[in-house]
Amino acid sequence: MAKLSDSGNPHQHISKQYDNELLDIRSRVLALGGLVEEQIEAAVVALVQGDVDLARRVIENDGKVNLMEVSIDEDCMQILALRQPSARDLRLVVAVIKTIIDLERIGDEAKRIARHAIDLSSCLSGKNQLTEVEQLGKHVRELLRNALDAFARMDVDTALHVVQCDKLVDGEYENIMRQQITYMMEDPRSTPACLGIMWTSRSLERIGDRSCNICEYVVYYARGKNIRHISIEQVQKDLLVG
Amino acid sequence: MAKLSDSGNPHQHISKQYDNELLDIRSRVLALGGLVEEQIEAAVVALVQGDVDLARRVIENDGKVNLMEVSIDEDCMQILALRQPSARDLRLVVAVIKTIIDLERIGDEAKRIARHAIDLSSCLSGKNQLTEVEQLGKHVRELLRNALDAFARMDVDTALHVVQCDKLVDGEYENIMRQQITYMMEDPRSTPACLGIMWTSRSLERIGDRSCNICEYVVYYARGKNIRHISIEQVQKDLLVG
Repeated sequence: MAKLSDSGNPHQHISKQYDNELLDIRSRVLALGGLVEEQIEAAVVALVQGDVDLARRVIENDGKVNLMEVSIDEDCMQILALRQPSARDLRLVVAVIKTIIDLERIGDEAKRIARHAIDLSSCLSGKNQLTEVEQLGKHVRELLRNALDAFARMDVDTALHVVQCDKLVDGEYENIMRQQITYMMEDPRSTPACLGIMWTSRSLERIGDRSCNICEYVVYYARGKNIRHISIEQVQKDLLVG
Repeated sequence: MAKLSDSGNPHQHISKQYDNELLDIRSRVLALGGLVEEQIEAAVVALVQGDVDLARRVIENDGKVNLMEVSIDEDCMQILALRQPSARDLRLVVAVIKTIIDLERIGDEAKRIARHAIDLSSCLSGKNQLTEVEQLGKHVRELLRNALDAFARMDVDTALHVVQCDKLVDGEYENIMRQQITYMMEDPRSTPACLGIMWTSRSLERIGDRSCNICEYVVYYARGKNIRHISIEQVQKDLLVG
């Protein structure tokens, strides 16, 4: 799991307890991120190995993801109400509120993949066509891990790097889609299996997008700048000037 | 566009200006919602009529959606920082922050549909297979309109009704998917067109999900209760008791 760094929170609070509350929330976001990462990994393994039991465990564990998200969200609301944070602390709490929504939805994507794993366990012919999905899953998990690392250290460079890497993941995803369309047209009987692989790949691609969302919140926290609708080149230029 | 009701905000603020700020933000959320609704409608019309120019306009207009979202988000942060709202007002501002994220992402789905409209304009054979997609689009827009109406009046009953209706939309979506899989397997040459219709339907189904998210924020605002991971029957029971 990514380790927290103090660098994102350089100024001193009068209340030690308030400091601890903020620190606690950040650690719990990372714990939630770690759980979600495990869920993605298990869902992809379940798909590739046709392991229905593992897929069922992923579906069950999604409840834990949901509980963690609700609990962190409630604590963020408490902090907003009782501590009335301003400036950097306020941006942190709002970044957390947004980040956990994305993490929870990434958990939902893992659950979707697990469902496909169950549906496909009887109709996947050979594992060869799953190699690319496995690779995509690996790369998407790296994106998420790096996004969580950026969050842990509130590190803008790591965050921007993730956004750049997501373009490579999008390319891999497009390749899988093209390949599956070719398979389906060559052998229509393979259509259900190919579609399952396409939906799974789409879920993985979306996890990449959501990892980028988290990175956008990191940049917003660190620099007070919303970069969602700006090209990465422009962002880098702006941040150098700013 | 949905009209604002005062019922959600019954208590008096000392500062008239603060009242106006909150009212202004709520109206702008509804304006953003209205624009997004138009984007969905135009994207589906572009697809069904093969109107490439209209599809291009949808893609262009997404920039307006993004600008509105960023601007409302900035003003929410200003209110949190300067007004330090508590209780109901705090829940309102946080509900707005979450709602506009979903509206902006619904805008992205409309843009995706518009892209499919351009890709499919040359390969759709007859409009008959689009009737169901058109219907799905109509129902999804109704869901969104009702979600915005629930938001405008902060009305829990309307919000819960939307969540229930989304189940019907999910059923329509499943039917389209099954139908397209059959078409593809019968005539593999139709695969690209069928996939375009499937992706479009998936985007529409996701818009329904996001409309439900907005309804969850309405319930959270009105009752201080997170209902995301609770069945609709349980929610209705809990709210009656509460």
